[in-house]
Amino acid sequence: MQQPSARLGDPVASVATPALVIDLDAMERNLAAMAEFARSHDIRLRPHAKMHKSAAIAQAQIAAGAIGVCAQKVSEAEVLAEGGIADIFISNEVVDAAKLSCVAALATRITLAIAVDSILGVDRLAEACKAAGSAPDVFVEIDVGQGRCGVSAEAAGALAQHVVSRGLRFAGLQAYQGGAQHIRGAAEREAAVRRAATLVRAAQASINSAGLECPLVSGGGTGTFAFEAASGVWGELQAGSYLFMDGEYADIGPAEHAPRFEHALFVKSQVMSRSASHVVVDAGIKAYAIDSGLPKVRGRELEMFNYGDEHGVLKPSGSGSAVDLPQLGETIWLVPGHCDPTVNLHDAYVAVRGGLERGVVEALWPVDTRGCLI
Amino acid sequence: MQQPSARLGDPVASVATPALVIDLDAMERNLAAMAEFARSHDIRLRPHAKMHKSAAIAQAQIAAGAIGVCAQKVSEAEVLAEGGIADIFISNEVVDAAKLSCVAALATRITLAIAVDSILGVDRLAEACKAAGSAPDVFVEIDVGQGRCGVSAEAAGALAQHVVSRGLRFAGLQAYQGGAQHIRGAAEREAAVRRAATLVRAAQASINSAGLECPLVSGGGTGTFAFEAASGVWGELQAGSYLFMDGEYADIGPAEHAPRFEHALFVKSQVMSRSASHVVVDAGIKAYAIDSGLPKVRGRELEMFNYGDEHGVLKPSGSGSAVDLPQLGETIWLVPGHCDPTVNLHDAYVAVRGGLERGVVEALWPVDTRGCLI
Repeated sequence: MQQPSARLGDPVASVATPALVIDLDAMERNLAAMAEFARSHDIRLRPHAKMHKSAAIAQAQIAAGAIGVCAQKVSEAEVLAEGGIADIFISNEVVDAAKLSCVAALATRITLAIAVDSILGVDRLAEACKAAGSAPDVFVEIDVGQGRCGVSAEAAGALAQHVVSRGLRFAGLQAYQGGAQHIRGAAEREAAVRRAATLVRAAQASINSAGLECPLVSGGGTGTFAFEAASGVWGELQAGSYLFMDGEYADIGPAEHAPRFEHALFVKSQVMSRSASHVVVDAGIKAYAIDSGLPKVRGRELEMFNYGDEHGVLKPSGSGSAVDLPQLGETIWLVPGHCDPTVNLHDAYVAVRGGLERGVVEALWPVDTRGCLI
Repeated sequence: MQQPSARLGDPVASVATPALVIDLDAMERNLAAMAEFARSHDIRLRPHAKMHKSAAIAQAQIAAGAIGVCAQKVSEAEVLAEGGIADIFISNEVVDAAKLSCVAALATRITLAIAVDSILGVDRLAEACKAAGSAPDVFVEIDVGQGRCGVSAEAAGALAQHVVSRGLRFAGLQAYQGGAQHIRGAAEREAAVRRAATLVRAAQASINSAGLECPLVSGGGTGTFAFEAASGVWGELQAGSYLFMDGEYADIGPAEHAPRFEHALFVKSQVMSRSASHVVVDAGIKAYAIDSGLPKVRGRELEMFNYGDEHGVLKPSGSGSAVDLPQLGETIWLVPGHCDPTVNLHDAYVAVRGGLERGVVEALWPVDTRGCLI
């Protein structure tokens, strides 16, 4: 592991590059806007901690009104729990018996929920919980259009019944339309959520037919949460990226009546090589993820057109000219296309107060669950 | 950080997923084949440790005859030096004064080399080395066709002269044609290396005209090393990926007369969700890089067609049918498209002896320089 890239109180200019930098003022405005949205729409907020992977940030979200957080992996939940987070929903399937023992053990220490989409998963969870003497909440995941995990809406009732028959508590539906998050155009995203809501209602009917109530529907992301909140179907939102806003989510355009979020996460980089036609910064795909496009450059007429593991190659964009290329050693602020896998590349956040030009380092937060894959 | 995914002596079946698994027997065959190639072609081998990021593996390469290793970042070199590696070439530019102080300090402890491609970089390096009383080897990087870092061949002599004028030791040329590594077809790659060799000769002429000798030319990668070795121009090879062989390098087809390398690095994953048409494994883009394509599936008629941060979605491929989809809990071995950024996602290697079916865990090696970005 490398030495920390900054010390508390350092001016932002002296933060070593590449570094994962939070604009704290912007992040806190995003935090407050989403908390206020949830409050005013009378819907629970359970932000996804797979995005920020930080117990400190999860605590800030809970302090602002979130009911708890989501995690995607058992090891993530364990590390967040060690970091003081007492209410976690593993919004994902686990079928491995050894991992389910960890889930059951964790459920003795914190308020824990988990998703299921198979008989085998329910059976193994039930065995593990019986052995541990714990009782996590169990959500049945339904496929609401993403084509990934989850049973069909019609099968929800039978699986919920199986949950109950194995002595577990059926807590509701996990209904996340991941594919809808990144559709361009708010109307198209709204239509996708409308189709998802129809499937949720069908699943609820299936559950009622099985003689059960559906206590809660959880789901929604940064691209669609306003539609889930307006649907009357979802009772809990899982949006995560709103806190930092990545390039991808900014590009798709916000929904009407939804809060506007600002970019709050950046990769600070530095020009390390310069030619007549381009410059090279010291941050490549080991410093930012490119699954949702190359990073954008903040506040400069530059665009990245090539990359390596440790290099980003930039040329003038728009009305920019090669004459204006930055000098060797100049700072270049990159806006990641996708926050979640970008954060996962870094050991720590450098949290800056007072803006990226003249701010100072107020906090250094470890990316606690970086590398938590199990 | 999560708990280790395995213990020494565990059967491979019990390694928790997702895990970064080395097939040790295959890796050692690759290691020996490249060492033998370098010996028999009388060329120095300095494998790039940016690929494996492990001091233990670097030591194995040196024990097999490598002169030392390359690193791409100052922090990588520092961590590898702490791990006992005594000869490192930072084959990359550094212009930041604070980082160059670290370079100069490190050069008092180990045999260190670094690349330069600017007057500013040379001046700052010279200042730092004067203050530290150290004398690293300095390579002038030339652009041999990649269009990234490096001066032109014609400018090499003037920059080498500047190196010497600032009291530093000019050690030769860094000449890596990164773009040539991934060209499909051995003949096309050979042609790219031939063009690069022409530029190296022009740079050598420029250096001689400046009254200097060029002691060494370093470069070459897994896609092209046989051509660099045959050229009579390069004296040192920097190939790294040969050790693990990723999907991308396997796809481009080997050169005639070059050793054949085997896949030796895998991501072990597990089926966590299953529908009538597809299965979902518990490894997404936080467990493998996708910049060079999605992972391939080892030994099964399956292909990945979609992914998430924590999910990989597989369907039947070729003659496979949905009837043969693996069961919940089954192990799926993924072959990463690109090793370097895949390794960088993991905390540790699980090194298995005796094959992936019935082997046992022989070693757990930390990915020492994971996250070393500075």
